[in-house]
Amino acid sequence: MYKLVLIRHGESTWNLENRFTGWTDVDLTPTGVAQAMAAGQLLKAEGYDFDVAYTSVLRRAIHTLWHVLDGMDRAWLPVVKHWRLNERHYGALQGLNKADMTRQYGEAQVLVWRRSYDTPPPALEATDPRSERGDRRYAQLTPTDIPLTECLKDTVARVIPFWNDSMAPAIKAGKRLVVAAHGNSIRALLKHLDGISDTDIVGLNIPNGIPLVYELDANLRPIRHYYLGDAQAAAQAAAAVARQGT
Amino acid sequence: MYKLVLIRHGESTWNLENRFTGWTDVDLTPTGVAQAMAAGQLLKAEGYDFDVAYTSVLRRAIHTLWHVLDGMDRAWLPVVKHWRLNERHYGALQGLNKADMTRQYGEAQVLVWRRSYDTPPPALEATDPRSERGDRRYAQLTPTDIPLTECLKDTVARVIPFWNDSMAPAIKAGKRLVVAAHGNSIRALLKHLDGISDTDIVGLNIPNGIPLVYELDANLRPIRHYYLGDAQAAAQAAAAVARQGT
Repeated sequence: MYKLVLIRHGESTWNLENRFTGWTDVDLTPTGVAQAMAAGQLLKAEGYDFDVAYTSVLRRAIHTLWHVLDGMDRAWLPVVKHWRLNERHYGALQGLNKADMTRQYGEAQVLVWRRSYDTPPPALEATDPRSERGDRRYAQLTPTDIPLTECLKDTVARVIPFWNDSMAPAIKAGKRLVVAAHGNSIRALLKHLDGISDTDIVGLNIPNGIPLVYELDANLRPIRHYYLGDAQAAAQAAAAVARQGT
Repeated sequence: MYKLVLIRHGESTWNLENRFTGWTDVDLTPTGVAQAMAAGQLLKAEGYDFDVAYTSVLRRAIHTLWHVLDGMDRAWLPVVKHWRLNERHYGALQGLNKADMTRQYGEAQVLVWRRSYDTPPPALEATDPRSERGDRRYAQLTPTDIPLTECLKDTVARVIPFWNDSMAPAIKAGKRLVVAAHGNSIRALLKHLDGISDTDIVGLNIPNGIPLVYELDANLRPIRHYYLGDAQAAAQAAAAVARQGT
């Protein structure tokens, strides 16, 4: 049996401001830093240890991972940073306030943008200064591979090849993985692992900074999963994520 | 022409306490953090950029690198952490105060321990609680490859294979490297690059937290080298390193 530990980054400045973030590279708030440090200390206290860490190329996830590793006395662990673990791209909504958008377009429309499985938000123009197409960290990609918007289905389509090519083989090779990523790259992975339907995935919310443990069988099928620490606090934090449009 | 940037970690808690550190995994002081952040900001202001970062598996170097990368807005860069870039192992002196040792054994003996090219300090016992042989980060090594003491010649012997196998090929492949390491792993590398004699290397001291730029020709032979920022401050900091036994 394998264990995989997933952690959504701690609270970011734009979580706090209730803005659509996506690929915008905002940092953690002091609360987010504290959440990440607590996650590392909790993992250590519960006896977890790892062989390799995975994260995205966005600083809120990278910094979360650094604090987790420091809390575990494991700063020396190898770290794989990959754009395929980035947050879902939020298109032309990136930077805009979720409650403002609800007032302007209505709750139903914002829920579609936030949670529809296959309807992406309006796309960024490639020439929009918010577009990441000029960002050096993505220079190795074919420009058209850098999204201008994504629905969760699109995020699944770019996360799962990386799971199959890198993460799953590492787990099967006996490596214990900790993954610091984002609400939607984690949802994409869980949809794949648990075989969650396109309908049911809408209701799945991931709280910030709480380690989520997946126990996997020899074929990497989930046996069970649970949040570490206070289960009620994790459920409340997930419910708060669900309410962000209001 | 290639550029290689080397940074000795910022001030550590045992630099501050004037203790022999070696492979002991002490952290940066607040001054050391500030030095590392300043180094990153300086590199950014001077227009430097990198493709890959190298560091040791000791937190004072890793944390220095993290602050440098943050200062450059480059937290997303790939990082290679390797034990071969660790500080020289200081044997049975690890943890002891340099000035105390000078009082006990005399300045000449301490200078031999600190700076002799081929005379190592007294070895740790493998069973000494200070030995790293039980440390999980070195579990992949043959136990006898984990040193119990090192002279600089020993450090050269383990740094240069890593230079030849990983760093030099990366540079020749066009990658721009930044290396956050230690006084003696950097001295080992410079001895090799500059062909410094066993005698002359004794007088070479590396200040904490100041980027050292090496310009290399197509065969990785040094053309020239210089510290970034205030040259006089760098020279004074290097002189202070030389005085640590007193």
